[in-house]
Amino acid sequence: MLNPGGNIQLDGEGRLRHFLTTDGLDRRILIEILDHAESFAVVGDRPVKKVPLLRGKTIVNLFFEASTRTRTTFEIAAKRLSADVQSLSVNLSSTTKGESLRDTLQTMEAMHCDMFVIRHSGSGAAHFIARLVAPHVSIINGGDGRNAHPTQALLDMFTIRQHKPDFAALRVAIVGDITHSRVARSDIYALNTLGVREIRVVGPKTLIPAGIESLGVKVYTEMESGLRGVDVIIMLRLQRERMRSALLPSEQEYFRCYGLTEERLRLAREDVMVMHPGPINRGIEIDSRVADGERSVILQQVSNGIAIRMAVMALIAGAGRGRA
Amino acid sequence: MLNPGGNIQLDGEGRLRHFLTTDGLDRRILIEILDHAESFAVVGDRPVKKVPLLRGKTIVNLFFEASTRTRTTFEIAAKRLSADVQSLSVNLSSTTKGESLRDTLQTMEAMHCDMFVIRHSGSGAAHFIARLVAPHVSIINGGDGRNAHPTQALLDMFTIRQHKPDFAALRVAIVGDITHSRVARSDIYALNTLGVREIRVVGPKTLIPAGIESLGVKVYTEMESGLRGVDVIIMLRLQRERMRSALLPSEQEYFRCYGLTEERLRLAREDVMVMHPGPINRGIEIDSRVADGERSVILQQVSNGIAIRMAVMALIAGAGRGRA
Amino acid sequence: MLNPGGNIQLDGEGRLRHFLTTDGLDRRILIEILDHAESFAVVGDRPVKKVPLLRGKTIVNLFFEASTRTRTTFEIAAKRLSADVQSLSVNLSSTTKGESLRDTLQTMEAMHCDMFVIRHSGSGAAHFIARLVAPHVSIINGGDGRNAHPTQALLDMFTIRQHKPDFAALRVAIVGDITHSRVARSDIYALNTLGVREIRVVGPKTLIPAGIESLGVKVYTEMESGLRGVDVIIMLRLQRERMRSALLPSEQEYFRCYGLTEERLRLAREDVMVMHPGPINRGIEIDSRVADGERSVILQQVSNGIAIRMAVMALIAGAGRGRA
Repeated sequence: MLNPGGNIQLDGEGRLRHFLTTDGLDRRILIEILDHAESFAVVGDRPVKKVPLLRGKTIVNLFFEASTRTRTTFEIAAKRLSADVQSLSVNLSSTTKGESLRDTLQTMEAMHCDMFVIRHSGSGAAHFIARLVAPHVSIINGGDGRNAHPTQALLDMFTIRQHKPDFAALRVAIVGDITHSRVARSDIYALNTLGVREIRVVGPKTLIPAGIESLGVKVYTEMESGLRGVDVIIMLRLQRERMRSALLPSEQEYFRCYGLTEERLRLAREDVMVMHPGPINRGIEIDSRVADGERSVILQQVSNGIAIRMAVMALIAGAGRGRA
Repeated sequence: MLNPGGNIQLDGEGRLRHFLTTDGLDRRILIEILDHAESFAVVGDRPVKKVPLLRGKTIVNLFFEASTRTRTTFEIAAKRLSADVQSLSVNLSSTTKGESLRDTLQTMEAMHCDMFVIRHSGSGAAHFIARLVAPHVSIINGGDGRNAHPTQALLDMFTIRQHKPDFAALRVAIVGDITHSRVARSDIYALNTLGVREIRVVGPKTLIPAGIESLGVKVYTEMESGLRGVDVIIMLRLQRERMRSALLPSEQEYFRCYGLTEERLRLAREDVMVMHPGPINRGIEIDSRVADGERSVILQQVSNGIAIRMAVMALIAGAGRGRA
Repeated sequence: MLNPGGNIQLDGEGRLRHFLTTDGLDRRILIEILDHAESFAVVGDRPVKKVPLLRGKTIVNLFFEASTRTRTTFEIAAKRLSADVQSLSVNLSSTTKGESLRDTLQTMEAMHCDMFVIRHSGSGAAHFIARLVAPHVSIINGGDGRNAHPTQALLDMFTIRQHKPDFAALRVAIVGDITHSRVARSDIYALNTLGVREIRVVGPKTLIPAGIESLGVKVYTEMESGLRGVDVIIMLRLQRERMRSALLPSEQEYFRCYGLTEERLRLAREDVMVMHPGPINRGIEIDSRVADGERSVILQQVSNGIAIRMAVMALIAGAGRGRA
């Protein structure tokens, strides 16, 4: 019983087949991805940043929601693995011809594509697609609605482990719009699985979902108490669109209450790590001096994002070879 | 006299130089492409789906008409041959600067591009361009107006041959908007050259060009009699835009008269093949149960599309090497 | 003192690190680029147009201003050097999310990109960015505002040298809208450094900046006298947008006064070279018979553009290897 619960993300041997969410992935898999990423992190520093692991594989970025940044990281990761990459912006193509999602997928499968990276504004889209695809095809979730962004979560875990390898000792605060954040959700699952001491979510009451305590987190609506004594601060990007709705006051008001300033940073542990999935809104959720300061690991996160995506693709392709 | 008629598609040795239309290409060439594609069809099933045949060649997709699907198949085919690929959407680029088509072509030629895949809404565009280009450049027609779509026709022939290799025994029905279909035209020429027993065109009178019998086809305006006893049914995609014109009744009405249903399928031979160039309009020209049913080879056509495009590119590049 | 003035374009050893402008680059560097390009010019004629020099390097085209043509030349050059290429159209991506330029650059740097090709409508943008980037990153200016277009200038020098290697003997006329032309400016600096005998700028008074004589050029507002006896004519592209402003009369009027016709061409030396950075406006700044005539080297310029861009990228990467 290598995949006892019939987890859709694992194959019959218990190896990673799809990468959809950190929810329900056990510690062994998460650690395997992190360990694998170690070996790819050094590739970025070499003069020849390329390994032939995925030569002759075709990876398709199927983006139903625009995101140049995420698409670029997946493209670069795939190219450094020597894969062939196709990026399709789906709004602009087949759906305008009235082709159904299922037909689009089957068409790409028939072209012998090996892996799809899915980005979609609808929660659950990646799972939905993973259930549709043929046995030889793997799905990587590049972010679906409010649901999950598992490569972001894993690069966050990788970055934390680089600096503070003893997860059991850590207090982590996730700050911002928890309700709408797939990053928050995926980080919470991963942090719990890796056994951190304490997870806090910090933000205005209107942006914290009721009952989130059931995920094993503590809720703080006051920034100062939320940051006190933490080892890691994960700032979330504020979607400015929310400002226009009733959920949020003005940008200045938000920054006054929840912006990460140097003063507030002093409430955390001296060796606190400041993280952010990017792109940052300077002066809205984070002060520039903190974003660019010595506690910030934001750019390391970006570098590690390439290594994590290479690791996930390579592991999945390895599982695929096992199946074939 | 290896190229007696001075066919623009052949070089002085009678080998394929451009691939513009199936009209006027002799049986020897068609069979050569099909045989070549056999060897590429297996590449798609290998773990490493790549051969080095076109390494260091530059192939340019020059798309004057948007088509993500066709562009993607040509890109994937070129990458699996290890070529470098550039895709240019011409509306969005040089023509907005007022550059003439000829200048655009000469500029790309001067960059030592080897092959252009042309997609254009104007009938004859690929021929026009083939007459303009330098001796070292080859043109592949990726679909021009109502005129020709020869790679689609060859992948159709390839798919038919996989299942029913004796062309002389076959009755083939092509169903839909014959007037506006470059696929129909290219299929008719290829089927005739390969010597099928009978070709039928089936559709409403308003969508069958007068005098088409001169191409060696029989006209049926009634679906039931058109399908009776055929070995192959090639459904055409209905352009919904036509619905708004006077040429066609409503979608429901069209489906009632010419939609391919399970019931109508029973009129054909028991081992009939159902084909469609995609993307399909479910419930308009074809019922979902037929499209996804056991007689359908629609997804095999997609797979074979990659193999055929690899074969055409490789043959043309081989002829090119002969010239150099 | 290998880099005495602290030229931002050179590293501590006096080797090319960024390529931003021809202004201030000494003869040794220009000649090194031209000599290097000689070896790449032959690559374009080979069956396998590819060398492994930049394998495993990541080159990013960061285009803040649309230019399919320039982007394509840089992409082709990078691919022929076996680099991985990412092209980002910046308007459509991160800046719409409110990300600052500096954050965009640091993010791409963190992904271990090696080289950025910058195209921007603002004069000085490439210099500005070169000052921001990390030590391991190099900037190539693909055209910034009215300021500089150094790869265009070098391909012009390369083309001139192919036909007329003795720069000291040459009289060169640059014709058109001098005020708004980055090509004119970059050509003037390069021609002066290479020691040509005479540089003339020719155009209507409204399109020649006051005091340009300080760059070592002679001003002609009359076409006939400007062309008399010259060895090289560099025609500039007329930006039709200027027509609508007060700066210029109608297109017909412009052609009447400054269009390069066969008749006017006879005023120059018999072996004169006619150059143009493309795309040309036939019948506005140049007559078709001249553009396509035997004195024209316009398409050779395009070919040489690939070789020059390969040379610049390879030299910069070589300097980078030295630093690492």
